[in-house]
Amino acid sequence: MVDVNDAQYGAQAENPTYAYVYAFIDELQRADVRNVVICPGSRSTPLALAIVAHPKLKAWMHVDERSAAFFALGLAKQLGRPVALVCTSGTAAANFLPAVAEAHLTHVPLLVLTADRPHELRENGAPQAIDQNRLYGTHAKWFVEVALPEATNEALRYIRTLANRVASLASAVPAGPVHLNFPFREPLTPAALANQPLLPPEQRDPLAWQGRPANQPYVSVIDAPLGTLPAAALQQIATQLQDHKHGLIVVGPLANPALTEPLLQLAQTLGYPILADPLSQLRGGPHDQSLILSSYDAFLRLDTFTDQHVPELVLRFGPMPVAKPFLLYMKRYAHCPQIVIDAQNDWHEPTQLASQMLHTDPVAFCEQLSSLLSQTYTRDEQWLAQWQRAERLTRQALHTTIQDFPELFEGRVFTELAELLPAGSTLFAGNSMPIRDMDTFFWGAPHSIETVGNRGANGIDGVISSALGVSAGKHARTPTVLVIGDLSFFHDLNGLLAARLHQLDLVVILINNDGGGIFSFLPQAAYPEHFEQVFGTPTGLEFEPVIRMYGGSYQRPADWTTFRRVFQQDIQTSGLHVIELRTERTSNVTMHRQLWQVVGSALRNQED
Amino acid sequence: MVDVNDAQYGAQAENPTYAYVYAFIDELQRADVRNVVICPGSRSTPLALAIVAHPKLKAWMHVDERSAAFFALGLAKQLGRPVALVCTSGTAAANFLPAVAEAHLTHVPLLVLTADRPHELRENGAPQAIDQNRLYGTHAKWFVEVALPEATNEALRYIRTLANRVASLASAVPAGPVHLNFPFREPLTPAALANQPLLPPEQRDPLAWQGRPANQPYVSVIDAPLGTLPAAALQQIATQLQDHKHGLIVVGPLANPALTEPLLQLAQTLGYPILADPLSQLRGGPHDQSLILSSYDAFLRLDTFTDQHVPELVLRFGPMPVAKPFLLYMKRYAHCPQIVIDAQNDWHEPTQLASQMLHTDPVAFCEQLSSLLSQTYTRDEQWLAQWQRAERLTRQALHTTIQDFPELFEGRVFTELAELLPAGSTLFAGNSMPIRDMDTFFWGAPHSIETVGNRGANGIDGVISSALGVSAGKHARTPTVLVIGDLSFFHDLNGLLAARLHQLDLVVILINNDGGGIFSFLPQAAYPEHFEQVFGTPTGLEFEPVIRMYGGSYQRPADWTTFRRVFQQDIQTSGLHVIELRTERTSNVTMHRQLWQVVGSALRNQED
Repeated sequence: MVDVNDAQYGAQAENPTYAYVYAFIDELQRADVRNVVICPGSRSTPLALAIVAHPKLKAWMHVDERSAAFFALGLAKQLGRPVALVCTSGTAAANFLPAVAEAHLTHVPLLVLTADRPHELRENGAPQAIDQNRLYGTHAKWFVEVALPEATNEALRYIRTLANRVASLASAVPAGPVHLNFPFREPLTPAALANQPLLPPEQRDPLAWQGRPANQPYVSVIDAPLGTLPAAALQQIATQLQDHKHGLIVVGPLANPALTEPLLQLAQTLGYPILADPLSQLRGGPHDQSLILSSYDAFLRLDTFTDQHVPELVLRFGPMPVAKPFLLYMKRYAHCPQIVIDAQNDWHEPTQLASQMLHTDPVAFCEQLSSLLSQTYTRDEQWLAQWQRAERLTRQALHTTIQDFPELFEGRVFTELAELLPAGSTLFAGNSMPIRDMDTFFWGAPHSIETVGNRGANGIDGVISSALGVSAGKHARTPTVLVIGDLSFFHDLNGLLAARLHQLDLVVILINNDGGGIFSFLPQAAYPEHFEQVFGTPTGLEFEPVIRMYGGSYQRPADWTTFRRVFQQDIQTSGLHVIELRTERTSNVTMHRQLWQVVGSALRNQED
Repeated sequence: MVDVNDAQYGAQAENPTYAYVYAFIDELQRADVRNVVICPGSRSTPLALAIVAHPKLKAWMHVDERSAAFFALGLAKQLGRPVALVCTSGTAAANFLPAVAEAHLTHVPLLVLTADRPHELRENGAPQAIDQNRLYGTHAKWFVEVALPEATNEALRYIRTLANRVASLASAVPAGPVHLNFPFREPLTPAALANQPLLPPEQRDPLAWQGRPANQPYVSVIDAPLGTLPAAALQQIATQLQDHKHGLIVVGPLANPALTEPLLQLAQTLGYPILADPLSQLRGGPHDQSLILSSYDAFLRLDTFTDQHVPELVLRFGPMPVAKPFLLYMKRYAHCPQIVIDAQNDWHEPTQLASQMLHTDPVAFCEQLSSLLSQTYTRDEQWLAQWQRAERLTRQALHTTIQDFPELFEGRVFTELAELLPAGSTLFAGNSMPIRDMDTFFWGAPHSIETVGNRGANGIDGVISSALGVSAGKHARTPTVLVIGDLSFFHDLNGLLAARLHQLDLVVILINNDGGGIFSFLPQAAYPEHFEQVFGTPTGLEFEPVIRMYGGSYQRPADWTTFRRVFQQDIQTSGLHVIELRTERTSNVTMHRQLWQVVGSALRNQED
């Protein structure tokens, strides 16, 4: 078998399995899949060899399937299109489950291609065989037990059709992972087989064997996104907005650049402030920031503020924002109508307080509402001004106070990064504390900084791999920076292998407080007896040697001046860099609590 | 909450959730569960705190759920009784799947206790929530969506009953993992709750609230193992054996010490050699070795042998042995009656050649057959002698030749270990090459050495953790030794944390050929173009620093004399020790092939 250019691809098959698998892989490519993450194995040989032989496919090898799947997740998230993921049979496939669950919840298009034993070698003690039928349960959008390879005209039409069908299905509303289980019989190599001759050339349907001309897909599949609301429904919402001037727009984690301007226009029209989640892509950037609030996680903790600011209506876009104070604010004003707009037919509403769920195109929704209201709507300027003032005072109070902390304060990483990250950077926040600190302390920069996180299941697993996948998917070599806690860093240490194998660029800011920092903020902290054993779980690990094992640089700055210098160097140097900040869980809680007091005072003083 | 002695346990509950969870955990203990592996998390707080508060339970903390689950698997395998496994909600639970799949296939009793959001916080965007309903699909033996905690007499009777039911179910035929999903509402801490007062003491049924007196289980569950065959069936098999003197007994991976003597007695009666898998617990030890064959993986490759030794009947116990030459031998003589005896109601028969499947107690089966036949059966002494001679010549040839190899030959690890391991040692073989080399080169010692492997799904994942779990479950501090390849070692590097956290003893022999050594033996090796990229997958990692990070010692002997010295030191010193042997994939294949030739010559010369 030799590599070929695309026109020849598939024509080189010497046995039926390969004719079938080449057709499948070639159609994936015609359906615009360009990246495949492959884990080594024997049963998956036909898939792996067909992929690496394809001139238009990029194969990313990874040894640990769990990390590989999270890498594929990050890559697909960054590219905004499906990435395929290949493994052999057995527990290899089971290792994909955490990332598949995350992809399902965050609507990331993945094509999970698991090799399997053929039916006669299942459930009877054959090696490396587990029941892979519906292995990912409800976490895969669709499961296909693929037919055994054959090289008839019919079978090739089937497999070409299937490739196009699943490649589009993964991205269709609601986007998510699709699982194809491929049974393969031996031999698994591409050799010609005397007992399985290929169909004579004159009997081959050229479309089935070579696909359509000019690299066209065998079936071109078009999935329209969700459309617009019925006019009457829209009019009814416009009327409702007319009656409620004290409203809020709330934007959760989203990655839809086309939505920015329509959202801002709608907020302008209504005079509603926009509470923008750190992953909303609205904090900072060249667009108008006057209506964007990013420090509500701090000021919504204050009864003095929430007592006096009773919401009359909330328009909420996408998933719930991370800030728990916002959730409590909504629960406090449980009768406030809450309209949720979701483009993925999802149901992001854990409060049971929403009054309306709109599954529709949010861009058209904003544009149509703005257009319906712009002539007639009168904003409540004071309402807006009060929220803007709270935002301004909170940010000032936080900014000033954290400058004065004598210790390395974890939250300051994000105020520093807002200043240090150049345009086009990507900032990935780990789960547990980093995303919460990002929420409170990352207010954006004048230029665009893309923000990313795994906020479907919020797991601490697979974070390094997801960030490396994002880095791998970037067109420009602008920095990708990950902020991650030590338990999460430990959990996906194996993910660092991808940086080494594929020469990826990533700057990791490792916030090491030796254990689970978030528990010190939770009610569990009131039970000191078993706290460290069960919740704190210090590992005492010194990560430097393992970082160096993966070819990464390692620095541990003791102050912010050094941090800045090191960071500036690292983002300008290719490869993996880890900057470790040693912090302390208890004092971190104290500093956070101190900040809430300072914010409280700042807002109270202003009222006086 | 304070720790209490057992008599008081449960009485200290201050809120309904804890009354319910204490009752559950206490009953697990009464049902003889003694070990729980806990991964940190918030939603699982009631389970974790109830476990660490129990004076009779040993809690093993582990941060990475994938490694934790394999640790629990090894521990349960070593103890031969159920181990519980606890995690929080979300992808944490998904990380258990690989080990759950392995436990299912190898009949290891695990109680998987996953915490979950309550029903109103599912599928609606609440954080750390994935669909955990039947998360492990067909890989769990039973799934229970546990009722929300309540502290009524009825609810406590329910949860006490459930604990006993699942603890016994996990071990009942066929043993395997049971999954309980516990929904917990906030608050998750043990504080008394004004709005949830406990039942007044006078209304409490003492059995429901404190359990039965004297630490008796609430329901004592007794599961009989499989019984004996009907007399007629047994007689019919005895008659069949009378007619077939050229038979074999084949024993796969088993851990049933009570079976050794009855098996040997049956083999003696029949004059059938015993082909003993390396995990059969039959190779070596104080019992009679004259009928035990352990080098058939080598001599069944020889047509000169298999041509002349036509089996007339095979009695096969437990799972298939690892040796592929045996499988091919069976396929060659496809008409040979093959009787499979399995004590777990399983179906270990991937060849579709078995003529009879007996789900019965193998001990009674052997004893009854021996007793039926002992008076009347005439052995074919020559048949037995030929197999014994092949065994003797093969071992001699292999032993002599590997002494002469100038390089470190991977297989020699096992001949060395047979000499070096003291009585009562446990030898864990990693998957892929180590288990195969163990099959060929580990012929046992005069004393007992227990052998272990993960031979359900044969994954390279979780091997370090499984071996550490075995070490943790040992009563005597005799050595536990793991032989593992570098890809498998890499896959479960995180597993090493358990050695550090729990001061476990393990000697790891890391066979580092920088990649997937087994592929060089497979037909894939004939396709050099993408071989290293897709199959060889070298990582180039130098593991020493990461081993030291976990507090392990590291040595890399360059010859066998040094290896012996280092190994002798390491098994006498507590803690984690890694001995790395650098080998080379290509020359390893050459040396293996050379050995098959030497064995071929040895057996041929003898015939001349």
